[in-house]
Amino acid sequence: MTRPLPKVIAASQAASQRLADRHTPFIMDDWYVAALGEEVKDQLLARTLLGQRVVLYRTTHRQVVALEDRCPHRSMPLSAGTLEHDTIVCGYHGFRFNTEGNCIEVPSQATCPANIGIKSYRTHERGPVVWIWMGDPDKADLSKLPPQDWLEDPQWETSQGYLSLQASYVRLHENLLDLTHLSFLHAKSFGTPDYAKAAFETEISEGQFALLRNVVPTTLPPVWGVPTGLTGQGQAARIVRSEFRSVGIHEVSVSFYDCHVPESARKTFRIRTAHMPTPETATSTHYFIVHGRDFAQQDKATTQFMHDQLFVAFQEDVVGLALQEQALEATAPEDLYEFSVAADAPSVAMRRYLLARQQKESQDRSTP
Amino acid sequence: MTRPLPKVIAASQAASQRLADRHTPFIMDDWYVAALGEEVKDQLLARTLLGQRVVLYRTTHRQVVALEDRCPHRSMPLSAGTLEHDTIVCGYHGFRFNTEGNCIEVPSQATCPANIGIKSYRTHERGPVVWIWMGDPDKADLSKLPPQDWLEDPQWETSQGYLSLQASYVRLHENLLDLTHLSFLHAKSFGTPDYAKAAFETEISEGQFALLRNVVPTTLPPVWGVPTGLTGQGQAARIVRSEFRSVGIHEVSVSFYDCHVPESARKTFRIRTAHMPTPETATSTHYFIVHGRDFAQQDKATTQFMHDQLFVAFQEDVVGLALQEQALEATAPEDLYEFSVAADAPSVAMRRYLLARQQKESQDRSTP
Amino acid sequence: MTRPLPKVIAASQAASQRLADRHTPFIMDDWYVAALGEEVKDQLLARTLLGQRVVLYRTTHRQVVALEDRCPHRSMPLSAGTLEHDTIVCGYHGFRFNTEGNCIEVPSQATCPANIGIKSYRTHERGPVVWIWMGDPDKADLSKLPPQDWLEDPQWETSQGYLSLQASYVRLHENLLDLTHLSFLHAKSFGTPDYAKAAFETEISEGQFALLRNVVPTTLPPVWGVPTGLTGQGQAARIVRSEFRSVGIHEVSVSFYDCHVPESARKTFRIRTAHMPTPETATSTHYFIVHGRDFAQQDKATTQFMHDQLFVAFQEDVVGLALQEQALEATAPEDLYEFSVAADAPSVAMRRYLLARQQKESQDRSTP
Repeated sequence: MTRPLPKVIAASQAASQRLADRHTPFIMDDWYVAALGEEVKDQLLARTLLGQRVVLYRTTHRQVVALEDRCPHRSMPLSAGTLEHDTIVCGYHGFRFNTEGNCIEVPSQATCPANIGIKSYRTHERGPVVWIWMGDPDKADLSKLPPQDWLEDPQWETSQGYLSLQASYVRLHENLLDLTHLSFLHAKSFGTPDYAKAAFETEISEGQFALLRNVVPTTLPPVWGVPTGLTGQGQAARIVRSEFRSVGIHEVSVSFYDCHVPESARKTFRIRTAHMPTPETATSTHYFIVHGRDFAQQDKATTQFMHDQLFVAFQEDVVGLALQEQALEATAPEDLYEFSVAADAPSVAMRRYLLARQQKESQDRSTP
Repeated sequence: MTRPLPKVIAASQAASQRLADRHTPFIMDDWYVAALGEEVKDQLLARTLLGQRVVLYRTTHRQVVALEDRCPHRSMPLSAGTLEHDTIVCGYHGFRFNTEGNCIEVPSQATCPANIGIKSYRTHERGPVVWIWMGDPDKADLSKLPPQDWLEDPQWETSQGYLSLQASYVRLHENLLDLTHLSFLHAKSFGTPDYAKAAFETEISEGQFALLRNVVPTTLPPVWGVPTGLTGQGQAARIVRSEFRSVGIHEVSVSFYDCHVPESARKTFRIRTAHMPTPETATSTHYFIVHGRDFAQQDKATTQFMHDQLFVAFQEDVVGLALQEQALEATAPEDLYEFSVAADAPSVAMRRYLLARQQKESQDRSTP
Repeated sequence: MTRPLPKVIAASQAASQRLADRHTPFIMDDWYVAALGEEVKDQLLARTLLGQRVVLYRTTHRQVVALEDRCPHRSMPLSAGTLEHDTIVCGYHGFRFNTEGNCIEVPSQATCPANIGIKSYRTHERGPVVWIWMGDPDKADLSKLPPQDWLEDPQWETSQGYLSLQASYVRLHENLLDLTHLSFLHAKSFGTPDYAKAAFETEISEGQFALLRNVVPTTLPPVWGVPTGLTGQGQAARIVRSEFRSVGIHEVSVSFYDCHVPESARKTFRIRTAHMPTPETATSTHYFIVHGRDFAQQDKATTQFMHDQLFVAFQEDVVGLALQEQALEATAPEDLYEFSVAADAPSVAMRRYLLARQQKESQDRSTP
């Protein structure tokens, strides 16, 4: 057997102690996607976010309300109640709550006691998604939300979707920061064999981590080749930037062009994907995805074609990361070790950052 | 957000510490329903009662036998064996047990060792139900079983049923002591909107807790309106008494009459429901129900009509209480608080009583 | 109730402390069946053995390879990868491992770091089964594998199968050492009523435990009566030896003959069954079975007939032992006690041996 020497394993395990993983408590003070805007209607939507049960709905003025999903009288989920005139009536004994989470009516008595209430959460709708701040409300600050102008820009044609991931959100961020996996996990969808071996650069700074990879020349898979027309063998350049923007959003930007056409004459096609993981539990994640392109904007058939092809690939991540999570769960701590290589530098730095963020948040909370 | 101030939440949590809940050990020394009589036949019935696996059967003399459901030789459930001449033969190696739980035959040897045996439990069949005493057999006393004469009185026409509840039995007792919920949880079955706002009285004494509510005038839902003929808008009086009789039985008694007819001339229709919760585990309950009326006793169609309508409503409780239990399970202890209002007085007193009973039982056991 | 006196129960519980059970750690340093040979092909087979996730495959030279089923880069199960030229390519980032468990390629870089590797396990294929050594590789020794010449002898016609057992392997060994259960658990398959009461002898020595039972005269069940032609009432002798050979194999040998024919003139029919339990988890077991006979060797219809009939019976063990395991799981420690009788002597000695083996192994490991 060629398991490494105990001291090598021990060193690897010690290094992993500095990285966020499934055991790291959630980072509360940041923006996460709560839902796609289209999911939130004038009806009650139950969703667990960062381990908290939340009920979401949209008021008659189109505002998104997010409240703790538990009646403080007898713990019935409020999402099992009814929405009446922008208030929730609990389905058990009829206690009524307004958009701020205040109880404003107790049917069995004439007056409503003061002080009965539940948390309401700050939300912010931007483009196709609804963001939520689950942590200290005094720290909620829209400037902390990374700019995503293209999500609202009519020059960008977008489509969006949702996947339920049975794995830690940390491992999804990690996945996105090393696209080497395209050649293997996505060999049958949008990966190509040359992808993993292409040269790459990394950018690592406080809270910003990126991996850049130029695959030139390459042959595009159908999802990109068909809409761009770059279908020739070895015809295309595929210039990729994969970047952790915040704990709630990772953005992949790709440019495609014909590498046989001189720079001055070439047409560049750009696509972007916002990957927005929101922890549900320690080992499950709401995976929101918005995909966009800056060409053929009015072509609905192309939008549908790309969306369908992409979601086949993202589903491969969902399957793969769930298998990884199961292996992590099944491995005894003394047998668990992971080795990193050069391509892991951004994801290792990112996981170190997440752990440090969480530890600082924990410390700040205990010493007010 | 309008979650109450920490000190308000802390006070609420401190008050809840005095109430029985899913974490309170079972009260062993009392009578519980083990089964409907019609369920116990000359075959082996496995059922978990108060966390104990029990096997039930009926002898050739119609006596109900209840034994521990585990062979003391190699732990095979006895309910997987066969019933032969009022004895159980284990399905693994053929050890035979009599109605007292004594092993009386070991097939692989000529003589049966003494001292091999399992618990047998005292049972008592009364009307349509079989009661069991799971605790200290020396304390089993039929006088502790609340009178339920109507269950055996031919003047009362009854029907019965069973529901499997995925919630603590404590929460079912609580549910039954505040029928405010009829207007909400049962809005589509036997609740009416005026029910929750009707005046009520409470009766609280040691081990007896009741809520009385007169809904006058009211419009009866079909389950009551059709059989009584009181179908007019605002024609009826609905006089309700909901009473915790013991840890094993709660009784709801209702009178209906035409509130426009003078007292001397009016006919009163009475119905009763015995709600009999038996804990299965900390968060699941066997819910036995017997329903009766003192009118139209021979009318089988009315019996069926009322039974069907009522079980739709009781199923609403089963769904609601399971949701409540899930919310309790999912809420971190520091986030869990419940506020009570005036209508909760009987149920709060009942839960305080259950906790005190259990604590006393625990104490008595440790200091014999 | 007739549960034994507390001191009797306490004595029984104390005796059980000396016996291996579901709580005993696995014995690592021994041979176990990893798979039937026919299961291992040129594709990846994932299987949990003794709590470890293992991936198995067969090389182009027909050798069976067994590796730890976890990529040491990012914990993806290697069984989710692909097999290429006798090496495994991880399905996530393409790390490649050879048959020794050494990483030999990292696609994102030109050179492969040293020291990245996983455990490989020693295997040994013999007859229809593949054995594996999960413990200390320095102690792997083929002489510790009990001889099973008949499994490779053309005089013996064999068939084999696999059952997934939801119970501890200890309880399967126990089951096999007391065939009293044939009259009860297998009353409808290959048991007969006289089996349990037949006289028996036991053989107990260090690591070897056997129960011998002569059932003469008896009536054979169809599985034996039909192929031997001994179908008459009370015509047959059934001479059984049930023997624990090692932690990985138990062998049952049976001879049948016409008990009305004098010894000099009689024909003896012999059958053997190798029962090979491999722990998957503490409460689940891979149950491999090879069955053989020394007569009518070329008769495929007889092979199929016996195989089908036998697997009906073995499935009864699978059902019964799972019920036993559930009862063990559901019983509070203070309520759990088991009494043994004379026929249990070999299985009690065997369980005592297993516990002592495990304790010694544990001790040897902590004092190297």
